Amino acid sequence: MPSIRMIVKEILKAEIKSMVIVHGGGSYGHPVAKEFRIAAGYNYPNQLIGFSKTRQAMMALNKLIIDAFIQENLSAVSVQPSAFLITNKGRIGEFDSTVVKKLLGLGIIPILFGDAVLDSNLGFSILSGDQLVSALALALNAKRIIVCVDVDGLYNDDPKLNPQAELIKEITLNDLKGIMGNIGASKTVDVTGGMYGKMVELIPALEKGVRVKIINTRINRLYKTLKNKDVIGTEIRME
Amino acid sequence: MPSIRMIVKEILKAEIKSMVIVHGGGSYGHPVAKEFRIAAGYNYPNQLIGFSKTRQAMMALNKLIIDAFIQENLSAVSVQPSAFLITNKGRIGEFDSTVVKKLLGLGIIPILFGDAVLDSNLGFSILSGDQLVSALALALNAKRIIVCVDVDGLYNDDPKLNPQAELIKEITLNDLKGIMGNIGASKTVDVTGGMYGKMVELIPALEKGVRVKIINTRINRLYKTLKNKDVIGTEIRME
Repeated sequence: MPSIRMIVKEILKAEIKSMVIVHGGGSYGHPVAKEFRIAAGYNYPNQLIGFSKTRQAMMALNKLIIDAFIQENLSAVSVQPSAFLITNKGRIGEFDSTVVKKLLGLGIIPILFGDAVLDSNLGFSILSGDQLVSALALALNAKRIIVCVDVDGLYNDDPKLNPQAELIKEITLNDLKGIMGNIGASKTVDVTGGMYGKMVELIPALEKGVRVKIINTRINRLYKTLKNKDVIGTEIRME
Repeated sequence: MPSIRMIVKEILKAEIKSMVIVHGGGSYGHPVAKEFRIAAGYNYPNQLIGFSKTRQAMMALNKLIIDAFIQENLSAVSVQPSAFLITNKGRIGEFDSTVVKKLLGLGIIPILFGDAVLDSNLGFSILSGDQLVSALALALNAKRIIVCVDVDGLYNDDPKLNPQAELIKEITLNDLKGIMGNIGASKTVDVTGGMYGKMVELIPALEKGVRVKIINTRINRLYKTLKNKDVIGTEIRME
C-alpha cells in the first residue's frame, strides 16, 4: 500500500511527539459490513459470521498500517475499539481512554479504527472512525484533528460529480452548520457516512475548540499540515 | 497451520455453545518479547519498538487463528487484552469482562491471547495467556478450563528430558500444591513460564471450583474432552 507508506514517512519526517491515528474501513471493512447489515444491529443469525468477518477485515487493514509504521521504526500499536467500547444505538457513551492516554505518555502511537462493536441496544453495530475521532479528541483534550481524505477538502458541492465545485479553504463552525444542508452526502460508497457524515461527527469536537483540518493525502500535504505550514485544504475553527 | 485447523474442526464437531479461547505467543510473540525484555517493564527507549513488534506479532498469530475459525463458518472475534486490561507489576487486577460476556451471549467465540500490555507500575509488561485464562474463568464463572499443550498432561518430571516421567492422570488441588516443588519448570522456551507457571496461574481458578483438564492436542483429544469423554490427560479438581 504505497499511500500508507507515504503517510508514515511524512509522520516520521514531521517528528510529531504525540498523536493518535484512527483509520476507516476502506475496501476492507465496508463491503462485508454492508453485506451483512452490521450497522443495523443483530436481526438474523447469519449476521454473526458477518460480524466476525467485518472485525477480521478491519484487523487485516490495521495490521498493514501498523506494519508500515514498524517498518519506519515508529512505535505504533493497534488498539481495538471493539475490545473496550460498547455503543448504545450506534453512539459512544462514556468510555475509558486510559489505555490510549498511557500509550501516548510512553511515546507510542495508538492506532484505532472504525470497528464492528457490541451495542447495548442493538446487539452490535458499526462505530465509525469519524465518531471515534471526535470522541477521542474530546477525551484526550486534543488540539487538532487532521482529516485525511481523497479530495482536497470541503467543497460546496461534490467535486467528483461537479467540476465547478469550489473548495472551501476556511470556515467557522457556525458557517459550517449553516451550509450543512447544501453539502449533500458524498457519493463514495461509505456505510458510515461520507463527507457529510464526517462533518456531523466532528461538530462536537469543534464546539469544544478542537481545530479541524481536512486535507488530501497527496505528497507533502500531511507533512506540511503536521508542521503547521500553509497547505491546500479546509480549515474549520470554532469561530 | 494444520494444528490450528484441526483444533477448529474439533471445536466445530463438538458443537460447543459457549467458550472462550486464549492462546499464547508461540513462535510469534515470545522471541520478540524476550529480545526486548518486555516482561521486565520499560527500562530503555529502544524497548518501545519492541513493545510495538510484540503486539504486532501477537496480532499476526491471532489473525491466523481467527481466519481458521471463519473458514469453518464459526463466528469468532479477536479481543485484544491490551486494549482493555492494564496490569500492576504484571498482575491483572479488576477488569471489565462485559465485552467477553456479551460476545458469549450472542453466540460468538471471543479469542484472547497473551499480550504485551500497559502496566501501571512498570510502564508495560507481559500478560501471559495462562494468567488471563484463570482470571477470565473466575470473571465468567466458567465450569472448566481445558489446557492444550504439546505433552500428554502433567508429569512427575519433564517428559521431554526424562523418558521415565509418569503422567499424572488425576490430581486434587491439595496434592498438586504438594508436588509443585517437584515438577520443575518445563524446558520449552517460554518467557511466561512453562508448565510450572501454568499450574501456578491455574490455582486461583481451581480454588474456586473450576475443573482443569490438561491435554495434548493430538487428533480427537480436544473433541473428546469437549464431549466429556474419557481421554488421556491430567484432570485437576478442587478436591
